[in-house]
Amino acid sequence: MTAPIMAASRRTRRTPYSDRVEAHGVKGYTVYNHMLLPTAFRSLEEDYRHLCEHVQVWDVACERQVELQGPDAARLTQMMTPRDLSRAQIGQCLYAPLVDEAGRMLNDPVILKLAEDRFWLSIADSDVLLWAKGLALGLRLDVRIDEPDVSPLAVQGPKSDDLMAAVFGDAVRAIKFFRFAVLPFRGRRLVVARSGWSKQGGFEIYLDDSSLGGALWDTLWEAGRPFDVAAGCPNLIERVEGGLLSYGNDMTREHNPLECGLDRYCSLDGGHDFIGRAALRDIRDHGVARLIRGVRFEGETCPPCLVPWPVRDAGGTLAGQMTTAVHSPRLGNIGFAMMERGFWTPGQAVTVEGPDGKRRAGTVAELPFVSPGG
Amino acid sequence: MTAPIMAASRRTRRTPYSDRVEAHGVKGYTVYNHMLLPTAFRSLEEDYRHLCEHVQVWDVACERQVELQGPDAARLTQMMTPRDLSRAQIGQCLYAPLVDEAGRMLNDPVILKLAEDRFWLSIADSDVLLWAKGLALGLRLDVRIDEPDVSPLAVQGPKSDDLMAAVFGDAVRAIKFFRFAVLPFRGRRLVVARSGWSKQGGFEIYLDDSSLGGALWDTLWEAGRPFDVAAGCPNLIERVEGGLLSYGNDMTREHNPLECGLDRYCSLDGGHDFIGRAALRDIRDHGVARLIRGVRFEGETCPPCLVPWPVRDAGGTLAGQMTTAVHSPRLGNIGFAMMERGFWTPGQAVTVEGPDGKRRAGTVAELPFVSPGG
Repeated sequence: MTAPIMAASRRTRRTPYSDRVEAHGVKGYTVYNHMLLPTAFRSLEEDYRHLCEHVQVWDVACERQVELQGPDAARLTQMMTPRDLSRAQIGQCLYAPLVDEAGRMLNDPVILKLAEDRFWLSIADSDVLLWAKGLALGLRLDVRIDEPDVSPLAVQGPKSDDLMAAVFGDAVRAIKFFRFAVLPFRGRRLVVARSGWSKQGGFEIYLDDSSLGGALWDTLWEAGRPFDVAAGCPNLIERVEGGLLSYGNDMTREHNPLECGLDRYCSLDGGHDFIGRAALRDIRDHGVARLIRGVRFEGETCPPCLVPWPVRDAGGTLAGQMTTAVHSPRLGNIGFAMMERGFWTPGQAVTVEGPDGKRRAGTVAELPFVSPGG
Repeated sequence: MTAPIMAASRRTRRTPYSDRVEAHGVKGYTVYNHMLLPTAFRSLEEDYRHLCEHVQVWDVACERQVELQGPDAARLTQMMTPRDLSRAQIGQCLYAPLVDEAGRMLNDPVILKLAEDRFWLSIADSDVLLWAKGLALGLRLDVRIDEPDVSPLAVQGPKSDDLMAAVFGDAVRAIKFFRFAVLPFRGRRLVVARSGWSKQGGFEIYLDDSSLGGALWDTLWEAGRPFDVAAGCPNLIERVEGGLLSYGNDMTREHNPLECGLDRYCSLDGGHDFIGRAALRDIRDHGVARLIRGVRFEGETCPPCLVPWPVRDAGGTLAGQMTTAVHSPRLGNIGFAMMERGFWTPGQAVTVEGPDGKRRAGTVAELPFVSPGG
């Protein structure tokens, strides 16, 4: 079968950069937060090799912002995550699992603290806006919640600092990891963070005026010519190598953050109050029943993981479920699997059952597969 | 440019029918409620002609159900919509706009009343689950909210009764419009409603066991051979002719239901309490500033409407925005436009500015363009 096309409509919103992305020959799209997200330009592997060597411009406008502003903004933001935000500083970006009353994951945004009473939740693929609005209305909180006209554009890859400095000046070099500065562009003051959904280094520019999308893209493009800039997008090979989990793929509303290895973002004994605290404490005290791990497995190629694949031990017992898989040019087949208790020790021998019926021998591994700089 | 493919991952969930849909050569996909929705099989026009003459099986599993169950289920369901549910009966399907505290639309589900304390909201494309959960938690309501394993399969077209009767017996013929019966299939008891997202008549089968997806599809397929059954999907030509608005396309969180012509689903003076009542009363009392209408316009072909198109009057004044447009074989170019006050009277002459820069002469029209049976 020929691969079905992405059928476009207003509902799957175009971004301020879609025209540029299409001019550069985007080959695949997905939909993320009701918006188009490119998935490939040349090929997955060519995009990967380029990302690891040069610098790319990514249309990640689908990382929509949920803005919480007002007297109760800090309180509501804290209620939504087990991460202790009490010492968060203005200018900081904080990765934060959001959970419900049962401790189940609803999203895993990066929270930007813009002011003591103003936050952006840069969200993964679920309508956090509705969750926040429902809570605020039910609890009669004094907070305004909306999706502002903010469309992140990412610059990722080892030459990111040089490209960004050419556009925004050397100030960008001083931005620390998961911090942001506010820098001028065409008369606007843009949030520019050292962050992004790769392990190759880079920035996210939070453009707050859709009409400047083309200008921002073109400016980066022109400045990037000496650095072999290319259009790119979150790359499946690179993200799996780097251990970057994806909400909706590797973590869902059926999982809690402790199962997802996000313990360090869950302060369960702090003085802060948040939804799901009792449930997460209970889960911690009893120990999780499953845990996300890497799995390396045999094969020169790897089909896409569209539904969870069974992972079994030598005796055929179901030991876990693989949720993302890819062929890495340097590591072979790798993927993420939610492993049951008793099977998650690194080195555990398993077989992976792909959709082609083949059983591939594999081994449980620590995450990430590749450490920064590795 | 070659049309980008729909890049698949677990996050854009497959349905219990995806294997069948692909075996029948689905040409396009979109994503709806984080799930795949087919958009074309042969061509838009061939699919349309077949739908209006025969019978089709549609994978609409992406119409996810938000189940509200428990002592406060009825109260919360009513809080979420201006439609008066006080006289709703078990076995009834109720189209219902959902609005926020400002009266802005968050979704427009069909509500199925399964029991006095159990409802399904068969939702359009937004995470109503999170809205309902946020409200319930904030208001400390006693209600369980979840997304059950329910995947609607639609049978649509003039021969639907015959096909359905061949599978479920003549009981289906007695089901009234927007009512459901509970009928047996392979040992399960399935909700079967006379409803669906076309004006050609038909049913929606709420399969509540994903493992039976292939069996249900195949059973309908075999029974449908005498009726020239085909794989289909919501058809853009048919839905625009019939005046079926789409949340995310023609109605968004920027609109209230009065602007969308949904007055008859908004009981603003009843005794029932719901979120947004004061706001909607105020909007009604002042009169809406814009109103959704049909527009007929010139042209032998019509590009897809991916961003709202300006609609102007003869003098060039912005008179509205077109949000969906299509070429109908029998009506020519037609579409939906949110028209500003002063320009929404049927017969108003306008020009429509498509993405190709062409200005097409047009006329404002009542909806629907085609009445049932017309």
